[in-house]
Amino acid sequence: MSHTVEILSVGTELLLGNVANTDAQILSQGLSELGLNVFWHTVVGDNPQRAREAVAIAKKRADIILTTGGLGPTCDDLTKNVLAEAFGKKLVFDEPSADRIRNWFQRTGRPMTDNNLQQAMLPEDCTVLPNDWGTAPGCAFEAEGVHVIMLPGPPSECRPMFQYRARPYLLSLSEGVIASHTIKLFGIGESTMEAQLRDQMNAMTNPTLAPYAKEGECELRVTAKASTDEEAQALLQPTVAQVKELFGSKVYGVDVPSLEYAIIQTMREKELTLGTAESCTGGLMAKRLTDIPGASQVFKGGIVSYTNEIKENVLRVPEHLLTQFGAVSKEVAAAMAEGARRVLGCDIALSSTGVAGPDRDDWNNEVGTMFVAIATQEGTYVRALRLGARPMRERLRIQTASHAFDLARRYLAGLPYKD
Amino acid sequence: MSHTVEILSVGTELLLGNVANTDAQILSQGLSELGLNVFWHTVVGDNPQRAREAVAIAKKRADIILTTGGLGPTCDDLTKNVLAEAFGKKLVFDEPSADRIRNWFQRTGRPMTDNNLQQAMLPEDCTVLPNDWGTAPGCAFEAEGVHVIMLPGPPSECRPMFQYRARPYLLSLSEGVIASHTIKLFGIGESTMEAQLRDQMNAMTNPTLAPYAKEGECELRVTAKASTDEEAQALLQPTVAQVKELFGSKVYGVDVPSLEYAIIQTMREKELTLGTAESCTGGLMAKRLTDIPGASQVFKGGIVSYTNEIKENVLRVPEHLLTQFGAVSKEVAAAMAEGARRVLGCDIALSSTGVAGPDRDDWNNEVGTMFVAIATQEGTYVRALRLGARPMRERLRIQTASHAFDLARRYLAGLPYKD
Repeated sequence: MSHTVEILSVGTELLLGNVANTDAQILSQGLSELGLNVFWHTVVGDNPQRAREAVAIAKKRADIILTTGGLGPTCDDLTKNVLAEAFGKKLVFDEPSADRIRNWFQRTGRPMTDNNLQQAMLPEDCTVLPNDWGTAPGCAFEAEGVHVIMLPGPPSECRPMFQYRARPYLLSLSEGVIASHTIKLFGIGESTMEAQLRDQMNAMTNPTLAPYAKEGECELRVTAKASTDEEAQALLQPTVAQVKELFGSKVYGVDVPSLEYAIIQTMREKELTLGTAESCTGGLMAKRLTDIPGASQVFKGGIVSYTNEIKENVLRVPEHLLTQFGAVSKEVAAAMAEGARRVLGCDIALSSTGVAGPDRDDWNNEVGTMFVAIATQEGTYVRALRLGARPMRERLRIQTASHAFDLARRYLAGLPYKD
Repeated sequence: MSHTVEILSVGTELLLGNVANTDAQILSQGLSELGLNVFWHTVVGDNPQRAREAVAIAKKRADIILTTGGLGPTCDDLTKNVLAEAFGKKLVFDEPSADRIRNWFQRTGRPMTDNNLQQAMLPEDCTVLPNDWGTAPGCAFEAEGVHVIMLPGPPSECRPMFQYRARPYLLSLSEGVIASHTIKLFGIGESTMEAQLRDQMNAMTNPTLAPYAKEGECELRVTAKASTDEEAQALLQPTVAQVKELFGSKVYGVDVPSLEYAIIQTMREKELTLGTAESCTGGLMAKRLTDIPGASQVFKGGIVSYTNEIKENVLRVPEHLLTQFGAVSKEVAAAMAEGARRVLGCDIALSSTGVAGPDRDDWNNEVGTMFVAIATQEGTYVRALRLGARPMRERLRIQTASHAFDLARRYLAGLPYKD
């Protein structure tokens, strides 16, 4: 049986644009992974009449209604009242939930006002979804052929409540288990990747293969459904192997969060150290590397050399290279990486220099002209990039940093720098 | 007349959770500022039947329907077809739009496939909204008492198309003009700010005052409606002046995008140069400064010193400070800023050192213990921060960088470093 889902979010802050509806995004990802079809997102404010009308519409077209928000005491528990009413249910006082709420306030040392216990009023005969991340419990029930699941709105509560409460409930609706692996690629465009796989993807039913793209990287998610996890893994393995074979050195990992994470992890295992010398990326490489907890075991530091003076004085780039080739050149990229390796005393150094825009540089290099380099004990390699002027400044910088990381992961894996 | 708006987004990528619906957020902000009531967000996929049903619902309950997405050649121009049909309109070929599309491909040097010209098919008698940021034109029309406005989906097109195309169209629907100013604050919590203003905010009708908070910063938006811009500005000025007076040195600017933008702008005017020495922020300060186009006139560079070795060898922090006080100390923060100022040869240097987590450091400093310093020709100042372990690593780093920027803007404005 193929389920159709509507995500109904309740919250005036969404309609005012104070926040983006990231709950709907996260839930949509999770639901899609379970093989459930999300066909509608709806947002209404803290308004009973419009909420009632939205529920009436959802009830007619979806067989799973997943709500977020409107559960707390400040909004009069709008969502629970409206959903219970729509399905002819009473709200009843749930003593275990009241206890949890009282305990929560005790533990966090905050005074509890009486309206907080309203949160323990739940639709009769529902499955209570205990909230370990806040005060408002969620709940789930089935009525008139529709499954209703209500989750709190704050993303820090909504995400774990979906993962640990709603997901198991939804899994019990579907038979068997769902497992997935994510294959991460760099150096291939989404459209090229899709073109190579489209026929195969369309022909697959279990496992399925879904492409995603963001910020110059691509990923392929392979998802299988089976009665046990072992069976699901057995279904996944041939496809994972086949995709890895097909895209070869463009695959940088399976189930790893990012290129920089993959580098830090490998270098930690190999006990190698890393440093950076950045011009056009202006600190972004260092920032991305140090976003990773524990990066300090690998990353020694970096130099952001936004002027020629600093390239010369701190990175020891020979002056004649700067005057002969200009700061945006393969010669300077190489000298920056080599300089950083010496000055920072690290095993591997990465560098970037280029024109991130909005204007051409003094040497009339076009926006998007970028060089990234790697210096190791085995030598130095420079990759020249023409990223074009169309991406925004922020995006050009992200892609350039990723290309530098790609050189490091290729070096670490013993792969050629260029396919 | 009070208008009610539904934002209808068309895109399967939203329902799969590949992206968050940031278009709806940005449009909601813009619409709210125009005094228009956004009552519904709806998302459907690239599916004609469900799109048709969603339009039928929207048509009954809203008098402005603003659509995003589904305009490109790959989705068969779903949105235009469905909306035109719903309001009994034909699509007709718009020659000027076709010219713009041909020019776009010529200018960007990419081959144009024929299906791109489908994008020039627009509802008869509509107002064409030319797209200078992509290929698919937007359009607007009024029929059956409903205003329909269609915008492209990619955020890089949707945002400017709203700002420069849809907004003027919507302004013509409302009588008079709407003007607003945004007062930016640093060093005050949202709840404290709200508490000081709540009664006043609730009592105000024109202008109105709305608070926003993000990443440790706050802003207050003052919005007025009047028959001319002059009148609106006259309404705004007393409130802006009053808020500035109330929050004093915590106000860092009006209508400026960010702390770092304010610093770069002031330093460019004063022809001063800036450098950074970062430990716990790991390049984030440099990254944020160089996010700003034209930063190179002010920012000379930075050193990310993630190890004591680099603090000593590159930043020239005296070894005895590191052994006596540890890397996370006010003494080392000061020495880092002073070292950076000398090594980088800049007028002002900012530094950061602290424990961003997840664990305490070797000296058993708690997560959230941070020091930021500023070194200038007039001396050095260190601010100690206890940000607590509750915010996430990323957030701790953002707040720490902002505190360093706050020192710079206070120095530049001749304000005391501490209130």
